[in-house]
Amino acid sequence: QMPRGNLETIHHRALVLAQLRKWLDGLKFREAFECMRKLRINLNLIYDHNPKVFLENVASFIQQLNSINHINLFLTELKEEDTTSSMYPRPDGSPVQPQAAPGQKKVDVVCDALRTTMESMDPNKFSLSILTAHVKKTVPELEIALQKVHELRENPPEAPGGVSAEEALKYLLFLVNVNDLYEHSLGTYDFDLVLMVAEKSQKDPKEYLPFLNMLKSLEPNYQRYTIDRHLKRYRKALVHLSKCGQEHFTEVLQLVKEQKLYSEALRLYPADSPQYKFLSCAYAEHLVEQQRAEEGGLLLWRCGEPVRALQAFTSSSSWRNAICVAQQIPLPPDQLALLARDLAEKLTEQRRYSEAALLLDQYAKDCEEAILALITGGVWEEALRLIYMHKRQDITETNLKPALLEALNTQVVFLEAQVATFTRHKSRLAVVREQKEKARLDMLDEDGPDCPDAELYSEASSVITASKYSQSNSRISSRSSKNRRKAERKKLSLKEGSPMEDKALMHVIGEIITTVDKMREEIHGLLRALVLFQFDKQAEKLQRVYDEALQMMEGSVLEVWPEGLQNTSAPVTGPNSTANSIMASFQQQQKPAASQQDAEVPAAPKMRNGIKWKLTILK
Amino acid sequence: QMPRGNLETIHHRALVLAQLRKWLDGLKFREAFECMRKLRINLNLIYDHNPKVFLENVASFIQQLNSINHINLFLTELKEEDTTSSMYPRPDGSPVQPQAAPGQKKVDVVCDALRTTMESMDPNKFSLSILTAHVKKTVPELEIALQKVHELRENPPEAPGGVSAEEALKYLLFLVNVNDLYEHSLGTYDFDLVLMVAEKSQKDPKEYLPFLNMLKSLEPNYQRYTIDRHLKRYRKALVHLSKCGQEHFTEVLQLVKEQKLYSEALRLYPADSPQYKFLSCAYAEHLVEQQRAEEGGLLLWRCGEPVRALQAFTSSSSWRNAICVAQQIPLPPDQLALLARDLAEKLTEQRRYSEAALLLDQYAKDCEEAILALITGGVWEEALRLIYMHKRQDITETNLKPALLEALNTQVVFLEAQVATFTRHKSRLAVVREQKEKARLDMLDEDGPDCPDAELYSEASSVITASKYSQSNSRISSRSSKNRRKAERKKLSLKEGSPMEDKALMHVIGEIITTVDKMREEIHGLLRALVLFQFDKQAEKLQRVYDEALQMMEGSVLEVWPEGLQNTSAPVTGPNSTANSIMASFQQQQKPAASQQDAEVPAAPKMRNGIKWKLTILK
Repeated sequence: QMPRGNLETIHHRALVLAQLRKWLDGLKFREAFECMRKLRINLNLIYDHNPKVFLENVASFIQQLNSINHINLFLTELKEEDTTSSMYPRPDGSPVQPQAAPGQKKVDVVCDALRTTMESMDPNKFSLSILTAHVKKTVPELEIALQKVHELRENPPEAPGGVSAEEALKYLLFLVNVNDLYEHSLGTYDFDLVLMVAEKSQKDPKEYLPFLNMLKSLEPNYQRYTIDRHLKRYRKALVHLSKCGQEHFTEVLQLVKEQKLYSEALRLYPADSPQYKFLSCAYAEHLVEQQRAEEGGLLLWRCGEPVRALQAFTSSSSWRNAICVAQQIPLPPDQLALLARDLAEKLTEQRRYSEAALLLDQYAKDCEEAILALITGGVWEEALRLIYMHKRQDITETNLKPALLEALNTQVVFLEAQVATFTRHKSRLAVVREQKEKARLDMLDEDGPDCPDAELYSEASSVITASKYSQSNSRISSRSSKNRRKAERKKLSLKEGSPMEDKALMHVIGEIITTVDKMREEIHGLLRALVLFQFDKQAEKLQRVYDEALQMMEGSVLEVWPEGLQNTSAPVTGPNSTANSIMASFQQQQKPAASQQDAEVPAAPKMRNGIKWKLTILK
Repeated sequence: QMPRGNLETIHHRALVLAQLRKWLDGLKFREAFECMRKLRINLNLIYDHNPKVFLENVASFIQQLNSINHINLFLTELKEEDTTSSMYPRPDGSPVQPQAAPGQKKVDVVCDALRTTMESMDPNKFSLSILTAHVKKTVPELEIALQKVHELRENPPEAPGGVSAEEALKYLLFLVNVNDLYEHSLGTYDFDLVLMVAEKSQKDPKEYLPFLNMLKSLEPNYQRYTIDRHLKRYRKALVHLSKCGQEHFTEVLQLVKEQKLYSEALRLYPADSPQYKFLSCAYAEHLVEQQRAEEGGLLLWRCGEPVRALQAFTSSSSWRNAICVAQQIPLPPDQLALLARDLAEKLTEQRRYSEAALLLDQYAKDCEEAILALITGGVWEEALRLIYMHKRQDITETNLKPALLEALNTQVVFLEAQVATFTRHKSRLAVVREQKEKARLDMLDEDGPDCPDAELYSEASSVITASKYSQSNSRISSRSSKNRRKAERKKLSLKEGSPMEDKALMHVIGEIITTVDKMREEIHGLLRALVLFQFDKQAEKLQRVYDEALQMMEGSVLEVWPEGLQNTSAPVTGPNSTANSIMASFQQQQKPAASQQDAEVPAAPKMRNGIKWKLTILK
């Protein structure tokens, strides 16, 4: 019986849905199903109406339907969509039903629930529905379905209602594309099954028989490898190929390189086998190309390739490993010294002076170079330690003291520049904020609180503060908000009048604070060294300059990042106010709060006041 | 002419103030002054009305008043208070005048401005007013005033209007307590001045004459020292005593120790003098008592006391300095080795294993102990370096590998425990938040949006969220807000139902995230070592566990610290709403925002996703 007309159907449906809900709540699945089928109502509603209750009563559902065709109809109509939020909204006031299995797909949950229930009830009777449940999953389980068909052929059901393999296969071909089914039958490595599918298909035997015959002639593991490769299942292909003996190892290596299956391949051979070594070397080469030379070095070293490992470690500045490998080889002393110098140079370029000094001192046996590296890096105490260790006090006068005074000068100049930049940005920030506040108040004044369009203007004023960049701030996942933040930082511009100038200024001010705050340890070390060599006056100056810089910056944090809301607006109620004006005014007030809280506002830096850097002996 | 009655005066005053403002704006200071004096209006208003204009027209002010008495009256009436915000509020709409010299005290600014102007106009004529300006500063400049009196005595003014020293002193005594003046006269070291003051005072000559005579008999520097000491001006006393020659050095040392004037004293002697050494040793002793032994050591070392310096450095674990001093002494090799072992033990207790190993290896010449220290500390690569350097590969099997597996196990167990605690706290936080939200909505529902007392209830609901701890959030200086935060952290309690439980949970969750995030480098090192020794399976497990922990925590950050406001409230306008209900409802909405922004809400931790710790060779 077809619906008779649009208008009537719509009215009809509203009533029908109410009735359906009653039936479903009463677990009267058959009545509901029949009605829905007749009136072409989407069958998903049976589940969507109350997922939890449905899953608890799957057996009753199957018994009530009591029809392979009906069950199949239900299964094939399953969609991921929730019909109670799209086609058939719930009546107002009724609670939203939670997903029964969060994280899993609805279709898979329903297919699995029905299938296991039918298997426990009567696998023979329901065999076609069971096949449907396999095939309809979001990733169709074609191989399992094919296996079940094959089983029916091997052991035909004795019960009278049973389905033959023939029928089952026919049904499968009705559900699934024939080529897909053929490929998947190949994947079972069961040639009977393959032939069975091939025969039922429209495929030309001249096409598939030679291929199948060729496969049949192969050694079983190599056969499976060939099939896996044909089906692009490279991991499985690798496992089977690895079982084909040493003569196929070149193919293994090729497959591994082609498909980058290094880790998987290593797992297939014992660590002391020559294959393991070959694979490790190939993997290491790949890692070096991927800028992962250190990991490559570890693989080479442990599989007994120290010379190649040394290369990998050296290229990745992994100097401790490089030196160990070099001593294991063992490299002759002069070459070890050269290596150490090489590594030290790289480390110096990366400003890793202490490590460079260790190499120069202990492996290149060049204490003078080591001490000079430490002095260059401002590692004063360690420099002094080597000076005393090697009795090279002469370097104190020739290099250490002049370097100390130079470092002092550099730091003072640097700090003064930072303070100047900081002050400039802070003053500018005050100006920018004042201008924005003025623009906001002007906007309010002009259009008056009686203007019913005030909401529109509140939008306009937010354009002034955040320009076009403030869109799409709602519902952001962690990942996308991270990208967004990165993208927005790029848009921040210090150019005067740029729409985000205030945020750009806050960002730069925060960076200066962090930079200066990070200097605590360095300044502490420099102060101690200066005092040791009686440069008290200079040390006092540095301590004063740094102290003033830190205090000035700490004192500015609350100014740059004020706490709480800014209550600048005039009272909003009064004889002339309306509900709209009050709301608009509150929204205006909320604007700065919301934009303050926005992820895009640079956060206030934390100062590490726990790090004590001052010397009490300096005033 | 006295005011005639309360009511009349008040009316009168309002009109008078308007007239005064006109006069002051027109720079008619005399008219204003006369009127104010008659009607007993606080003279501060002359300045407060417009500080900038007043300071620009001080000369005109003085000329118009043209009376020492009137100027003195004005000066003596100066108060720090701003009369335009206390007694005589500005009429509505008139702009607030900014402080003329922010950071400086108003009284000092005005005194100095008047004094310099009078000095440039006619110092003789205005001498009493100049004295008043000195004396009325917030820290009275009595010595300068006394000096000026003394000058008047030495060079009596020839002009007819001039004031005699006698008169000036009398006037000073009228302004200042006689004992204060006597003490300060002593401070000028000018006995003429002292006697002059003493004679004018009621002091008994039998009392002060013997003291003055005793002072007169002393050597000038010692005399000044004695006076300074008497006046408790210890810094000056030290300077004068240091000039009294070597025989008084014991007194210097005593004074320095008594008054802790070590830094000041060191500045008074050349660095190569014996006094400098004595003072340095005394200072160092003091620093050691103050837990500043390292700084003490630096002083001792540089003044040529290496043995005592060694002690100071050792006690403060300043091992590099200790070793350097020891080699300078020089300590014999066996004692140096003992020292190194001692220091290494201390460092091990502080978990500074790398430094301990360096001492054991290079100074105690015990590579085995050094390697074991590194293994204990989990410094795997450095341990391996020493193993290869000293050809002690045996330790790899006996100690390194077992320690690696133990460390792996410890880390996995630790991470699992952290994840469990984290999950527990997060679930509890969700429950607590739901309860609070429910309580808030209940409160709204019960009393209905029509209730004109809704504001009161909004207060009540804020009590629920923040309890009694949310008072006094306005206008907090940086320092006090820091203390407040510290105090509040103590009040956070994880006990179920505690008023700040949600914040306590956020705090603990943040701490767990920081702890786990900090492990990146450590895990990276452990993974590399495990891979090197073919413990791939174990390394994979650790990598998986740590990766899952990090991802779970990162995924929870937005849940625990949600962005922006929580828009949970129903629409607030409708047929039954009133202006009050709308306002109340908005305030309710704002509450959570304000408390979110409050300093007391623990901040979201930052994860260091830039630190790459994963190995690609592990899946």
